[in-house]
Amino acid sequence: MKHFTSVTDVPTPMGLIQKASAIKNDPFTNTELGKNKVMGLVFFNASLRTRMSTARAAYNLGMKVITLNVTADSWQLEFEDGVRMDAGTAEHIKEAVPVLCAYCDIIGVRSFPGLVNQKEDYAERVIHAFKDFGNCPIVNLESTTLHPLQSLTDMMTIEEYKQNACPKVVISWAPHIKPLPQAVANSFLQWSSHMDFDLTLTHPKGMELSEEFTAGVHIEQDQSKALEGADFVYVKNWSSFNNYGKIGEAPEWELTKDKLQMTNHAKLMHCLPVRRNVVISDDALNSEHSIVVSQAENRLYAAQAVLTELLNFSV
Amino acid sequence: MKHFTSVTDVPTPMGLIQKASAIKNDPFTNTELGKNKVMGLVFFNASLRTRMSTARAAYNLGMKVITLNVTADSWQLEFEDGVRMDAGTAEHIKEAVPVLCAYCDIIGVRSFPGLVNQKEDYAERVIHAFKDFGNCPIVNLESTTLHPLQSLTDMMTIEEYKQNACPKVVISWAPHIKPLPQAVANSFLQWSSHMDFDLTLTHPKGMELSEEFTAGVHIEQDQSKALEGADFVYVKNWSSFNNYGKIGEAPEWELTKDKLQMTNHAKLMHCLPVRRNVVISDDALNSEHSIVVSQAENRLYAAQAVLTELLNFSV
Amino acid sequence: MKHFTSVTDVPTPMGLIQKASAIKNDPFTNTELGKNKVMGLVFFNASLRTRMSTARAAYNLGMKVITLNVTADSWQLEFEDGVRMDAGTAEHIKEAVPVLCAYCDIIGVRSFPGLVNQKEDYAERVIHAFKDFGNCPIVNLESTTLHPLQSLTDMMTIEEYKQNACPKVVISWAPHIKPLPQAVANSFLQWSSHMDFDLTLTHPKGMELSEEFTAGVHIEQDQSKALEGADFVYVKNWSSFNNYGKIGEAPEWELTKDKLQMTNHAKLMHCLPVRRNVVISDDALNSEHSIVVSQAENRLYAAQAVLTELLNFSV
Repeated sequence: MKHFTSVTDVPTPMGLIQKASAIKNDPFTNTELGKNKVMGLVFFNASLRTRMSTARAAYNLGMKVITLNVTADSWQLEFEDGVRMDAGTAEHIKEAVPVLCAYCDIIGVRSFPGLVNQKEDYAERVIHAFKDFGNCPIVNLESTTLHPLQSLTDMMTIEEYKQNACPKVVISWAPHIKPLPQAVANSFLQWSSHMDFDLTLTHPKGMELSEEFTAGVHIEQDQSKALEGADFVYVKNWSSFNNYGKIGEAPEWELTKDKLQMTNHAKLMHCLPVRRNVVISDDALNSEHSIVVSQAENRLYAAQAVLTELLNFSV
Repeated sequence: MKHFTSVTDVPTPMGLIQKASAIKNDPFTNTELGKNKVMGLVFFNASLRTRMSTARAAYNLGMKVITLNVTADSWQLEFEDGVRMDAGTAEHIKEAVPVLCAYCDIIGVRSFPGLVNQKEDYAERVIHAFKDFGNCPIVNLESTTLHPLQSLTDMMTIEEYKQNACPKVVISWAPHIKPLPQAVANSFLQWSSHMDFDLTLTHPKGMELSEEFTAGVHIEQDQSKALEGADFVYVKNWSSFNNYGKIGEAPEWELTKDKLQMTNHAKLMHCLPVRRNVVISDDALNSEHSIVVSQAENRLYAAQAVLTELLNFSV
Repeated sequence: MKHFTSVTDVPTPMGLIQKASAIKNDPFTNTELGKNKVMGLVFFNASLRTRMSTARAAYNLGMKVITLNVTADSWQLEFEDGVRMDAGTAEHIKEAVPVLCAYCDIIGVRSFPGLVNQKEDYAERVIHAFKDFGNCPIVNLESTTLHPLQSLTDMMTIEEYKQNACPKVVISWAPHIKPLPQAVANSFLQWSSHMDFDLTLTHPKGMELSEEFTAGVHIEQDQSKALEGADFVYVKNWSSFNNYGKIGEAPEWELTKDKLQMTNHAKLMHCLPVRRNVVISDDALNSEHSIVVSQAENRLYAAQAVLTELLNFSV
């Protein structure tokens, strides 16, 4: 594995999931693998779990870590080709990325979408720039349209908690007060195609995701019907793809404990952060259904599996 | 010792002070104790000494460090129970803390008071939330009402510099241009009760501290009388407890070299940062009385003693 | 070498350049030299290369790193002597620096000029304060008038790429939209005096540097003439020294590929960040002339050579 920017970079997704589970059982078997190696964490946006779990994963492998909050620590970077840089941006990505790769052995990068221009966001130019202009492995810490570290975690968590060979997994849209990216849902669908799931996607009319990701996915617009017999309910808000970046106004889609009663004692998942009593109700999050913290803990092992593969490849 | 959030967490305060002094003499005896362990430093507020001395203490024990500036690096956290999170806070402490504990072996947290609502500040909800919702040792890096790492340092420094078995220690209020917490003074009083001090508290009328901390403490409202024969003068501003959060208007309480002449060649202490010529005069800070830099240096050994105890307990 | 704040701190500049080149060939020969040592990186201003390359250099030597963004992480520091600190600054450098030295073994500091008051900027008070009030080695990470880590890199890069014993090196002023410091150019001239260069400085009328640095340097105000036969073209903007801090209005001084045709297949250098199509044109930066990324990579080895010398001296 040369990069980890999408499931398409992963030769055998199930193999990587199993690697992550094995690391969870014994996180300190490879503390010399990253000796004399540095992980660079480049953030264009805020982060809590990703920032800390990826750093911890690097430490568990004996790597050092350098974190760069791009705007706060340095200056704005230019991504457009051929522009006269006489405004807000002080350095072009064509210089910044190879320089970062000169100081770091692996670069992780987070860059959220603007949610204004669909075409621009779905072009994934930041991730492409890092791959194109750098010569070191790139890890996607959530890009404009994908969040593969989250999805690897999610798949690993479902494998860990599933009670039967082919569980029913429902990904259910939820309300939110701000326009959020589609990245977590997109990646979840992408990774699910490699799993033995019975997958159902449910969302209000108007909140369809890109067909690039929903092709072949079972969609049920009645949330109650979708939840029937579910073994896992993955709750997530996203803003509209077709009416790009618009918030979905459907507060009745909040996931509550009542709704979980319809399921097969479903495990409740969410990538966090979650706005309580907007996205998911207190009674659901506080119930025995919720595995959101265990799921977040698995971010560490997913990241460690990814870094292990990248280090092994580059050695 | 399971946590370090107050002197009440410490089985034998004097034992911890002696441990800190021993570490100062030989800081690198335990460089393997923290192997494969990570210290998480969570800052809701600015910090210089605490940030750097605690990181250095962790390094001296072989730990790795991850620092999180909550607002700048991630997003605002919610502490209220049961609220509908449709405003400024994006993640509830009920999720954030267990997740932090999943990635870190010890968590240090700094969170200043608002100084608007006495009852709310003195409820210490941030520290309680970290203890309640996490499952890892919590270190208080200055909370709304306490600063035990500073006090451990202060006690250690007095032990180091004292010339007689029972020195006279005076804690003297000083003026300031901004409303400051009572935390340093509260903790100093709390820890002093475990020491062989002759302690005197002096402050202008109206600047009384909470009786929770002053019960049994000798208070002398005449600063000159208080300073007579003092071996140590600990200078510190705090805002009013009773007229909660109000600044005390008493510029004549600035500690000067003239006032130090009244003492028994007293050592001058302050937790820093100190506003020169507002809180303490240049001539006092530049004099042979001042041990404020040595005192600050001891922050490192105090933190290292605390982390050593927490690591030993959790092993 | 006790400090690294200027070329005047370096006993044998050429020896340090050779050390940096040797480290580039084998960066991991001294991974135990910095054991139990901490590098403190103190930033009053933004940084990308310096921040990351110096951290990486410290890691390669086995050091730990603590980074402090002064304003964001802590509070504003006071440098004036004798002032009543009743305004924006909360801590005096007289306390802050010795405290930083108590927690760190080497301190690097970056502090840009205000570019308003020439006398104040050229007094280099921040660097002097760190040397005067601290008791640990100080590394200049770019001060108000000097950037010796950049110049050590630049000299090392010229040594690496030169095709003949005494190359013609041209330092050519370039346009910019903001007032920039003179530090990179000043240091370049300072270090050049220790090299076997045929050095030419070229800039528009009015953009003269301080005679302190240009004494004895060949100045050619016609850019075309200056570039004739050049083996290296170092491009850099600076604001006016005499009309202090004013931007030079001369867009025709942008370095383009056409201008490089006049040279002897010159290598194109710049310290980065560079505003494309303002300072240097795309066609020049994208051409085979450009070595700006290799030059930036050498920042790591230059920093590692400096830290090696400082650690060896202090042992």
